[in-house]
Parts: sequence; C-alpha cells; structure tokens
Amino acid sequence: MSNILRKTYNHFSLINKSAYFVSCTQACQDLEGFLSPREVEKMVRVGIIGQGYVASIFAIGLERIKLGELNYYGVPLANELPIKIEDIQIVTSYDVDKSKIGLPLSEVVKRYWEGHIPESLQEIYVKKGIHLRSLRNLPIEASGLEDEMPLKEAVEQLVSEWKDAKVEVILNVPTTESFVPFEKLENLEKAIKEDNRDRLTATQVYAYAAAQYAKEVGGAAFVNAIPTSIANDPAFVELAKESNLVIFGDDGATGATPLTADILGHLAQRNRHVLDIAQFNIGGNNDFLALTDKDRNKSKESTKSSIVEDILGYDAPHYIKPTGYLEPLGDKKFIAMHIEYISFNGARDELVVTGRINDSPALAGLLVDLARLGKIAIDRKEFGTVYPVNAFYMKNPGPKDARNIPRIIAYEKLREWVGLPPRYL
Amino acid sequence: MSNILRKTYNHFSLINKSAYFVSCTQACQDLEGFLSPREVEKMVRVGIIGQGYVASIFAIGLERIKLGELNYYGVPLANELPIKIEDIQIVTSYDVDKSKIGLPLSEVVKRYWEGHIPESLQEIYVKKGIHLRSLRNLPIEASGLEDEMPLKEAVEQLVSEWKDAKVEVILNVPTTESFVPFEKLENLEKAIKEDNRDRLTATQVYAYAAAQYAKEVGGAAFVNAIPTSIANDPAFVELAKESNLVIFGDDGATGATPLTADILGHLAQRNRHVLDIAQFNIGGNNDFLALTDKDRNKSKESTKSSIVEDILGYDAPHYIKPTGYLEPLGDKKFIAMHIEYISFNGARDELVVTGRINDSPALAGLLVDLARLGKIAIDRKEFGTVYPVNAFYMKNPGPKDARNIPRIIAYEKLREWVGLPPRYL
Amino acid sequence: MSNILRKTYNHFSLINKSAYFVSCTQACQDLEGFLSPREVEKMVRVGIIGQGYVASIFAIGLERIKLGELNYYGVPLANELPIKIEDIQIVTSYDVDKSKIGLPLSEVVKRYWEGHIPESLQEIYVKKGIHLRSLRNLPIEASGLEDEMPLKEAVEQLVSEWKDAKVEVILNVPTTESFVPFEKLENLEKAIKEDNRDRLTATQVYAYAAAQYAKEVGGAAFVNAIPTSIANDPAFVELAKESNLVIFGDDGATGATPLTADILGHLAQRNRHVLDIAQFNIGGNNDFLALTDKDRNKSKESTKSSIVEDILGYDAPHYIKPTGYLEPLGDKKFIAMHIEYISFNGARDELVVTGRINDSPALAGLLVDLARLGKIAIDRKEFGTVYPVNAFYMKNPGPKDARNIPRIIAYEKLREWVGLPPRYL
Amino acid sequence: MSNILRKTYNHFSLINKSAYFVSCTQACQDLEGFLSPREVEKMVRVGIIGQGYVASIFAIGLERIKLGELNYYGVPLANELPIKIEDIQIVTSYDVDKSKIGLPLSEVVKRYWEGHIPESLQEIYVKKGIHLRSLRNLPIEASGLEDEMPLKEAVEQLVSEWKDAKVEVILNVPTTESFVPFEKLENLEKAIKEDNRDRLTATQVYAYAAAQYAKEVGGAAFVNAIPTSIANDPAFVELAKESNLVIFGDDGATGATPLTADILGHLAQRNRHVLDIAQFNIGGNNDFLALTDKDRNKSKESTKSSIVEDILGYDAPHYIKPTGYLEPLGDKKFIAMHIEYISFNGARDELVVTGRINDSPALAGLLVDLARLGKIAIDRKEFGTVYPVNAFYMKNPGPKDARNIPRIIAYEKLREWVGLPPRYL
Repeated sequence: MSNILRKTYNHFSLINKSAYFVSCTQACQDLEGFLSPREVEKMVRVGIIGQGYVASIFAIGLERIKLGELNYYGVPLANELPIKIEDIQIVTSYDVDKSKIGLPLSEVVKRYWEGHIPESLQEIYVKKGIHLRSLRNLPIEASGLEDEMPLKEAVEQLVSEWKDAKVEVILNVPTTESFVPFEKLENLEKAIKEDNRDRLTATQVYAYAAAQYAKEVGGAAFVNAIPTSIANDPAFVELAKESNLVIFGDDGATGATPLTADILGHLAQRNRHVLDIAQFNIGGNNDFLALTDKDRNKSKESTKSSIVEDILGYDAPHYIKPTGYLEPLGDKKFIAMHIEYISFNGARDELVVTGRINDSPALAGLLVDLARLGKIAIDRKEFGTVYPVNAFYMKNPGPKDARNIPRIIAYEKLREWVGLPPRYL
Repeated sequence: MSNILRKTYNHFSLINKSAYFVSCTQACQDLEGFLSPREVEKMVRVGIIGQGYVASIFAIGLERIKLGELNYYGVPLANELPIKIEDIQIVTSYDVDKSKIGLPLSEVVKRYWEGHIPESLQEIYVKKGIHLRSLRNLPIEASGLEDEMPLKEAVEQLVSEWKDAKVEVILNVPTTESFVPFEKLENLEKAIKEDNRDRLTATQVYAYAAAQYAKEVGGAAFVNAIPTSIANDPAFVELAKESNLVIFGDDGATGATPLTADILGHLAQRNRHVLDIAQFNIGGNNDFLALTDKDRNKSKESTKSSIVEDILGYDAPHYIKPTGYLEPLGDKKFIAMHIEYISFNGARDELVVTGRINDSPALAGLLVDLARLGKIAIDRKEFGTVYPVNAFYMKNPGPKDARNIPRIIAYEKLREWVGLPPRYL
Repeated sequence: MSNILRKTYNHFSLINKSAYFVSCTQACQDLEGFLSPREVEKMVRVGIIGQGYVASIFAIGLERIKLGELNYYGVPLANELPIKIEDIQIVTSYDVDKSKIGLPLSEVVKRYWEGHIPESLQEIYVKKGIHLRSLRNLPIEASGLEDEMPLKEAVEQLVSEWKDAKVEVILNVPTTESFVPFEKLENLEKAIKEDNRDRLTATQVYAYAAAQYAKEVGGAAFVNAIPTSIANDPAFVELAKESNLVIFGDDGATGATPLTADILGHLAQRNRHVLDIAQFNIGGNNDFLALTDKDRNKSKESTKSSIVEDILGYDAPHYIKPTGYLEPLGDKKFIAMHIEYISFNGARDELVVTGRINDSPALAGLLVDLARLGKIAIDRKEFGTVYPVNAFYMKNPGPKDARNIPRIIAYEKLREWVGLPPRYL
Repeated sequence: MSNILRKTYNHFSLINKSAYFVSCTQACQDLEGFLSPREVEKMVRVGIIGQGYVASIFAIGLERIKLGELNYYGVPLANELPIKIEDIQIVTSYDVDKSKIGLPLSEVVKRYWEGHIPESLQEIYVKKGIHLRSLRNLPIEASGLEDEMPLKEAVEQLVSEWKDAKVEVILNVPTTESFVPFEKLENLEKAIKEDNRDRLTATQVYAYAAAQYAKEVGGAAFVNAIPTSIANDPAFVELAKESNLVIFGDDGATGATPLTADILGHLAQRNRHVLDIAQFNIGGNNDFLALTDKDRNKSKESTKSSIVEDILGYDAPHYIKPTGYLEPLGDKKFIAMHIEYISFNGARDELVVTGRINDSPALAGLLVDLARLGKIAIDRKEFGTVYPVNAFYMKNPGPKDARNIPRIIAYEKLREWVGLPPRYL
C-alpha cells in the first residue's frame, strides 16, 4: 500500500468513527477496496484508556514518527516487527477528566507537549470512560459513564463504541488504582452483575468490557500498563481465554525497576550476596501526585518489590516504593538507589545509582511495541496472557506466580517468541 | 574421598613440592593409593603468577572456605561445578618483588589481610619469576630469573618447576603491563629465541612457558587475568592449540566494566540512544599506582572501551579509563559513571552510577571459578581459547575479534558450556 | 588537678550517687578538699535522658578519649574550650526501656559498641524515666515513673535524684516524639498540674523538671537534641528565664540537614535560583523505626524543612523528610539529595549528593560540645535560650522565629560567643 | 539618566570606537553633555580578551538583562551594587581565532547561543589579540599581533586601541595557558624588552599592557579569570601598584572547586577528619579540550588543589584535577566528588557529590560582578590586588600566599568590602 493511500484510508476511517460521523462513508469503503487484505491486516487500530501524559506522548511521538520527524529511539523492537510503527493508528480514546472529554486529541496533547501538533490528532475526540473513584485525591473533576447508568450498561456502551471504531488493541494507561484481585471468575462476574462499585476499579471494568468485545468480534488485546492485577488475576486470564482476548500486563516496566532487575541479575550471577536495597523515586507528574495516596502507593510498591526475591532467589531486605511528589520535577523524575552486597572473602561493596528519567516517554515507547505485539498475538490466537511479552515489558509479569527475570534475558526470550533473531544470545 | 584424607593428601603433596623437600615421600605415595583416580581428577592444582593483592585474597579466601569460615559469596558458580571449591589447591607461586621471593605464602598474605592466617599457607614458598620491566615506576625492587640467565633458559626452569609441582592451571595476575601483541606465532618464537627483552613482556614469556609445559605434560591451562593480549593474540592461540594449552583471557572482568556492559545492554534492548558515557575509577592499591604510567594505562583503556561498540552496535562517544591513584582508598576503589541517552519522543535521560568496590576480592572470586573451569577445559581437551568462558569472566574476551556481550547473557552461555541448567533463560 | 586525682574524684562521686549508695562517703568529701574550687568549676556533671544509640556512643567515646584511645574528631570545638573534654563526667542516666532500667551503663553501651568497654561505665546505673507513649510503635516494652505516680510527683522525684547526682547539664536524647508546643507558660503549668498525660510528651515533662531543678540549685542546662519544641516554645523559654535554666535546642543538627543548609547558602550567595530540593534519608536504627510513625515523622519534617526559606529567602519547592527504615543499614544511614537551580543566562544546573553517614556518632560529637557550652552558659547566667549556640548545633534553632543560617557562618558566630578567635572570618 | 538617553549614548560611543569609525562624532559629544558626570561615572566600559564561550554568554546575558528578558540569577551581587548590571557596556573585544577576528560580536555569539541575538551586539567587532601558542593542541588557526610586530609594539597598539575605546575594565577569559610566574618585576620587564616569546604567555602580555594603559589614563582594572598567575605573581602586583592598575585573580571560582571549599569548611568546622578527596570533571567545551594538554592541566590542577590545606588546616590526600574531554557533554560538564572522613568515636563517613553544571554561564555570571567591582576599586584607588574580592570570586585568590577560605565566609567579607549589609552574619 502506498503511503498516500494508507494515509487517506487512515484519515477517512477516523472521520467515520469520530464522535460526529457515525456511518461509514462511501469514500472509505471505496478505499478499502484498493487495499489488499494483507495490508489491512498489517495495521493496528488502537484505543486508548486514560488520555494523560503517557498516552499523549504516545500519540505525538507516533505522529512525529509518521511525519519522519523522529527516529525510533525508545521503542525496544524499533522497526524490526512485521507491523511497522507507521502502521499504528489511534482510533479512539477515553478519559474521565471533565476538562478533556469531548476535546480533540490535539487539544489534550497540547497540555503535555510544547512542540507542533500534527493535524491528524484533530480528528479523534476523547470519549467519556469509567472512573470508579480513580481520580480521588487528585485535583481533577471526574465524570464517568457509571454516573449515568449501571456498570453493565456502561460495558455495553463501550463494546458498542469499540465495534464502531474497529478497535484491535486497547492500551490501558489511567492513573494507578487501589484494587483487590478477584482470583475467581465467578466473583468478577458477580460484581459486574450486582453493579458493585466499591469492589470494582475502572481498569477491572475496562478489562471485562474488552473480553465482551473480543468475544463478539472474534479477537482483541488489552494491554494493562498500570499495577492493577489483570494479567496476574486468574479471574481475568480465565475470562480472556474464553473470550478470545489477549492480555498483556501488569504495570509497564519503566524507570528504576527494570534497571534494578538487571543490576540484581548482574550481582546474582556473580553470587554477590545483597544485604539491602533502597530505591527512591520522586516526580512531579499526576501519577506521582496520585501515589501520595497511601492505598495506591501500596499497589505500586507490590509490583516494584516483586523483583527482589524472583531474581536474587532470596528476599534481601529492601525499601522500594514511590517516595514523593515534587511538582517542579515535572515528568522527569529523580531516582536514587543504594545497594550493599558481600563479595568474595567477605568484602563489603556499595553501589549507588541516581538519575533523571523522563517517565512518560519511557512507557510510551513500550506501548509502541505492545500495540503491535497485541495484534500479532491476536493473529496467532494466543488468548489469555503471554509471559514472554510480559516478562520484558511489565514490572509484574503475569500470569500470577510467573517469575521476574533480568530484563536482558527477558528481551531475548521475547525476540524468540516474536520470531526475531537473537541480539546477543 | 573423606575430607580428612583429602586434607592429608593436600598436606603431603604440598610438602613434597615445597622449596625444601624435593622428592616425593612415602607417606604421600601411600595416600595416593587410597584415593580413587576419579577423586584425584576432581582436584585442581594451581600455580600463581604475581603474589600481590588479588592472589593473596584468593589464597586466604580459599583457605577460609576450606575451614568453613566463609561462604561462597563472590564466586559466580559457587559450588555448582563438579569440582568443588574445597578441591582447589595452590601448589606454587611466583613473584619478582625481592621482598617476597623465598617467603612462605602466609607471610605475603599477611600484608593484605589482617585476620588469622591458616597454617596451610606456611607450606608454599614464593619462587622467583620473570619481570621484564613490569615493576617499572612502582616503588618495588624487582628480581627475576632473566637477571641470571637467557629467557629461553628461564622458560626451561619454569617448565621444570611446574612439572615438579604438578601444576594444572596457572593463574596470571601480575601488574598491568605495556605490551604489543605478536599476531604471528613465528614472531613470538623469534623473540624468545633471540632473547628479545624489549619486545616481550613477562606475561608473554609466562604464557609461552605454559605452552611448553602443556606440550610436555599433555595438558594445562593459562588464565590471563590482566590486559596483555594472550587470548586475543592469534600467535598465542595458535601456539596453545598446538601445545595442548587452554587459554582463558584477557583481563578479568571486575569493577565497573562488566556492570557498564549490562547497563548498556539494558539500554540497547530498549533502543535508547546513548549520547555519551564517562566512567571514572580511582583506587589506592598497587594496580592503580601502576596505571599512573601512561603506557600501562593505555593497555587498560583499550580492554575497558571495547564494550561500547560491541554492545550498543555503534561507537557512542565515551571516556572510559582508569583515572587516578589515591592511596587512602586502598583496595576499595571509587567508581563514577555518567550515561546520557535519548528515549522515546526525543526525551533526554541521565544515569549516574557511583560506588565503592573492593577490587581484589572481585577478581579473586572469579579466579576460584576460572581455576576449576581451566581443569574442566583440559579434561575436555578444548585447547586454544574458550569464548563462552571468556565472554563472562573477561573484559576483553578472546579470541581476537570476539564480541563483548552483556554479562547477563554471557552467564547463561557459560552455564550451557559447563553443562549446568540455565538460571534465568 | 592531676589526672589521677581527678579520676579518683570522678570515681568516688559516681559511686556516691549511684543507685545503690545514697550518702556521700567520707573519701569523697576528703578528696573534694584537695581540689581547688576553680578545678571543680571546670568540670561538667552530665545527666543523660534516653540511654540509646547516641547516648551510648557519647559515653563510650568520652571514656575512650579519657583513656587516650581516641582523638577529638567529630567534636566541633575539640579541645579549644576552657572546659576540656576529659572534664565531662556522666553522673546519671535515664531510660524507659524495661530491659535497660537498673543495668550499669557498661551493659547498655555493649548493645551499641563492639569494642572494649572501660570499667568506669560500670559505676553508673540506668534509672527509670518518663515515657508518656514515647515508645509506642517500637518493639520495646516501656516502663516509666508515671506508671506509679502522678506526673507532678515524678517531676519531684527527678529533681531530687538530680540533686543527689549534682547534675549540671541534662542531655535530652530520647526517641523523636509527636508533640504540640504550649506557647503560653500557663498552659504548660496547667497540664502538669492536671496530670494531662495526653497533652504532655516525655521531653516536655523532663524540661519542666529541669526548670524546677535549676530554680532550686541556682542554675542548670537542658540540651534538647530532638525535634520537640523546647527552645522554640515560648512557654519553656519564659519558664527557663524565671528558673535559672539554660536551654539549647531544638533537634541536633546532624546528617544531611546542616550540609543542605551550607549548600543552599553557597547557592544563595551566587544568586542561583533554586527550583526544587528533594532529600531522602533511610536508616536502620531505632530512630528511623520510630519515624515510620506518621506523627513523629511530621515533627522531624518540620525541623528539617525550616532551613529552605530561612536561607534562600524564598520557599523553594522541596521534599525533605525522613524516608524509611531498612534494618541492615544499621546506624549508618544512606542519604540522597537532589537540587536543581538556575544559573546565569537561564542555564539549568543540577547537583546530587549521596552519602553514608553514621547517625549516632555525629550527634554524640555535638553533645560533647553542648555539655561544656551548657556549663559555660550557666556560669555566664545566660538563662533562657542562646541563639549563637543553637544556630550552629540545632536543626531548628530557638527561640521561636529565629532564623536558620548557613552553618559555616553560624560556626563563626558561635566562636565569637564562646570567646574563641575566628577560624576563617 | 533616562534609559533612552543612556542607550543612545551607548550606541554612539560604540559606533565611534568601532573598527570603521575612528573620530568621535558630534552626536556623541552632544549627548555626553546631557549626562551628569555622576551618571557617566556609574557606568563601566568593558573590554574582553578571549571571545569564546564564557565571553559570549556574558555578552548575550548582559544584553538580555538590558532588554528585560532575563532576571539576575547567577550574578552573586544581583542589583545590589551602586553600578547596575544595565550599566555595563562591552566596548571592545579581542580574540586570536582567525575565524573570529573582524566579525561583529553578534556573529561570534551565535556560535554559542541558539536564541535571538540583540542588534546591539552587531556594533562591536572582534579585534586581533596576542596568542603566543595559546591555541596549541586546539583545532583552531591562530593569528596574533605578534605575528606582525615585536611584543613591545603589540603592547603599544593594544594601549592605543584601549584609549580609543575608553576601556575601564579588561576581562581576561582566554583558554587556560601553561605558564611560569615572573616573581620579580625586573624579570617581567626584561622578557618584554627582549621579545621573549617562549617565556611569556598571552595573559602575561595582556596584563603588562593593562598596566601601561592604566598608567597612562590614570586607572584601569584587569580581571584574570584563568589560572595563569597574575594576582598571585608579585611581579604583576608590584607593577599594578606602580601603574594605577587594579588586578582581580586568579582563575574564576566556578564549578566544583568553590563548592568543595564550602563542603570542606563544613567538615572542618565539625572537626571531622578528612581521609581523602577525589574530584573529577569532564566536559565538552574548548576549555576541556585544551586541558587534555598536560601542561595546561597542571596549571588548572594547582589552582584547584590549593583549597585543601588552606581550609582543612592539613593536606588531606586528594586527587583534584580536570579529568577529560567528552564532546557531547558540551558546556554542561559532569562532576563527581568523593570525600571520606572520620567522625566522632572513629566512625567513618562518606559523601559523594555529582552534578551537571553549565560551565560558561557560571563564570559569566561572576564577570558581571567583577566588571562592576573593578570600576569600584578604580574609583577607590585600591591599586594592586584586592583580597576580599579575590577570596570569593577566584579559585586561587591573590596575592601570593593569601589563603583560600570557605566561600560562604568570603562572601560576607566581600559584602563588607563593598559596603553592603551582611547577608547572614
């Protein structure tokens, strides 16, 4: 497919599905005739949940790559996949911030990005999602579908909208939630049925909706980039298998945690005995503000801490949790990590890692891969969750009880799963 | 073999080979009768070249492990190998520091270790080696065999002494040298023949002697833990293949370099584009003092820098070299590393790693593995050099043009070579 | 006074005042005859409240200095004061940990110090103090005088014991408390009178008792090394002035905070505009464990944060608080600090400070000065609180509303107050 | 004087003195009549030597301040001085880089600053100075007056040009030189007379010319911001006193060195015993490139190291020198510093400082003060060198044998000298 044709197609299909045009226009249908099935197949139609910092950087970065303004830095698999980065298309987006709902993506992205905003982002409008207390303790006014209808109906509305948009992969990047896993599918189904708003989080409802959607359309993927257990909750994995849903999760592995995983792997391979690990994080974006809430913080702490015993083989004393909020740091968080260990003949060594790391671009770059890998997994009908993907991209790789491994190893396993030649192995 | 028997055997065989007892005593021969051939085979008889800080920590750590005073921390393969740490036996040692030659190991070790010195170290005496200017610019008076005879004769004397000591693996850990590789075997042989003392370094002569020795006894290993190209010099690898010599090398991978390798691997796998790398090292041991010499420093710099392009796939601008000498830091060097890179959407991140790392124990712990792996390679008749071993343990893994890879990957390849189950793969 | 005489006197007067000997022996009285009044005057008789890590390092360090085993490192004014370090004498000690009460100091010190314990510490016995919930959330069983009697009576008992011990300076170093200042003296007096155990903290009761004691004996000093407002509470300062009590406080300036003060002073003097400050602390001693309690943490945070606006002249956004507890770090805390600022022409700079700092010795070294300065202030009849002392030694220098200044400046003001020549000025 | 009048005056007087207009125009003379003598006196006419990074940031920052685009951040005395920042006027500039000579300042500044360049910088043209090998080992083609005439004549030409430009303060900021101090005035005069180009550095010749100029016009100031000994060379100080020249120097105190001074002062005041100090610097500007030359590096090392003994009172072992050149770091150098010390009771602490610091703005901000202080010193006729200024602004404060003191103290002494109220004292 020539680039021009592809772009035109993207353009029309977007207009079609936007808030203002409901039926497919003739132009669009005509154009589809020009494209071979294989070419359509190679594209990924993405829906976003949580149009915040990460999703906005994802959107702008994608468009800049399409415009040739940006290289592939920060995207682990770059252009090695059969589906090209240029073939990712955002077709819908959800948020629960009253000030965002109804705006074109271009307007929202502007809040997080100072540069030029491509016109293509003017064609997608942010739709109203589900909040279920997820903006509690944030200085944001929330509005959700559940304010107007029971959860079951909200789920149906989402499924219907996704059908219209022909969504393939749903990227879930809202604010960190405080949650309790369901463990058993029946409990999850009961909570939905009983409209149990205290028991469910927004992410759990979205994932449930994704399963309903996948069942109806024959396949879809849900990428859970936040700590809420989805890939780690047997209830959702069971549901996904039944429903033709691919789940990737949980909690996108950015920042200090995957680096810690590799440094611990490095020490473990030398049989250096780790005495203690302290890891601090402080940032100024909304996610750090949200984490000043004790319960949310706990969600994050548990996904971050799971690496220690998994990789070392023993539970070295550690203090690993999001530490604080400092507004002027913005999206560029400050990390500090201290590790003490015993080397040969009882010698005591110390490592300190500090850094300034842009939080949102790190995750956005992973999403560029995850969207394409989601499509590939659907094509392969690998429903449920996919450990070789999770092990590299996620802080808490599902399924439940799956082990964290050094990311350098996980990367090679991922390549093997995708069918790419090894890089170092 | 019971521990008591094994210890008794160790004891006698040591006495036998010490400077003062030349012929094998009856007690020793009797004892050998008690041991099955398989048990003898499982032991490793080690010769040390350069009885400095590293070799002394190696010696004391080994004895403390045998006494049950110390765990296996800092030894990468711990007790997983068929040959146990307790089965390593130091049978001879060489140095060119006049104040060390002729002393029992216990007296030398005392200079580097404040704790209790086991009696077993009283039975090995430091022999006179070869210096060839290797102590130049150090405040040490050197004395070498070559001061009394041509190099060829010195080689013969070494071979003869090693035969008496029944050495299997020679650990080469003298001070960093300034050197020029030979590339062609005939050049090396010519230099020896012509007694060319300006062309040869001590390590080159020792490695040549090791090959002569291996040829005569049917197999031996030479572990080159310093930057001088041995495993990376085709001349030596060719000679080794001809002579039944196993070579591991070059430059034991301790300190900041292997950690840098893994951090760079971590970044490369996320396709983060590294802008620059600065790495500083300052320490207070004799090796840092030696590196204040410009030519030696260059040897070190080249082995340290080779990782950048190998791992990233492009030659990111870098400044990686031993930086200075500061006496009160002692053996616990201070390292500082700065890495800047580009993440998704052009975001610019920074990592800083600092640390205090005990230099000698880090290398000594690797030698505990390398001694045993040397024996295993001899048994397998893998003469020449062994990349899967070098890739994990060496800063500049031979053979020439072999690639540096992240150590976390190298470790799994090593386990595969040894026949151990993977740890993370 | 010869050293022998002084030691003998110390010895007898200690025995005299110990828990088991109540009346002054003849030997002691005889000895006092030998000493000139000026010599006695030059000594300081110290009482300790809170025989934990700091007080134990204070005790052992003092004895080691007397024995000539230790130099004056860590004591800011070293031996420059008219009262020598060797002239400090611990005469009594209080704690509320059931497992410490009644033990000789030597037994308690042993828990914090592995080296040899001088005999002199066998002669002081730990007395029962007041807790008022101060050990809440710590794994320690508390026992206090208030469990047996009203607070007013407990105060009387303390005063009576201090008279017996001829205490001059009381060093208050218990665990950090959650507190509310009294502001008005009448409120404080009412709380004592009404036995209001919910309103009062242990430190407030001790300081009140110190005032009663000072009134009766004509002069005493109370050094408050923890965050509870004493020098910063106008109620206590008023009481102190009326009662011949010297107060130094609040919160001994150790660790990252005074260093931050000097670094901020450094930046302010270059008119660099500080954008943000993040400061983390994590340690493994009981004080860090206590600070995992939210209310105590707040006390600490407020004394630590007060430096920012005082020194910069504007309230730069900051996150400065004790961060966590990690047992294996022990008394050697890990600190990390990040400062971002604007330099000339809008350039943006960054500083990161990390470190390992022994917590208790840092404060113990200051106490060695504060004990002697307390005596000097009593002699000068500077009752109430003394800003030039507080400004250097305290995180939150009293009186209320007094300003934090860079410590490098405060030091010179302190020297001026003491009558010592300037060091750099 | 109204801003408009002042700007017009600045404008005309510049045109007057530019390379293309030699005689004073009537307009200019008329305008001078409007300005009261006091107003003219309050201005500073500055000449620059070395129009590189620092001088270009100085020029652009100054213009941006005049345009109200920039605040006073990074200028230690901000607008507290009687001479305002807006009253500083660059009237001439010298360089020896062939590609800069003859260009308007605006063109040169463009190489170092991406933003908008104010028109005012189009009116000053870079003149040819003296190099005397100062660009050796830099990738720059040098051209100097001495290539066309003897040094004595070059001096005369400089003096004559400075008279035309009515320069008051000369800011010397060329590349670091390798130099030997003269110590005796007669030696300096002899070298000039004999045209001894091997003995003299460019800075020494400029300073000599400044003295000739000051003698003729009755007063001028020479600010030496590089390591060459001028304020520390008794030959120059003597000459300055005889010639009505004010000298400030040597080596502007930016970067890690003044911060080290304050941190060491902080430790010294607590009597913490410093065991060792390692300080690294790596940057990517031309000054770092120049410092890869061994001899230049030595000049820098000696001014940087002088702080240790001065401030601690003993010569703690240290490694303090510019470490390397890494091009992508640009003007934002990476610093790393490690300090180990003994606290009370023999406890061993460690501090590590790392940072990213913009090199040129830091010095440019100091020059904004030094230009004005130079004028003030001329007015006060404080000829020779002025320690209270040097002690704060210079790494190696003259006169020879003057002591380095913590900068926090030096700042207060400076304010006292200027007549400003103390900030913290």
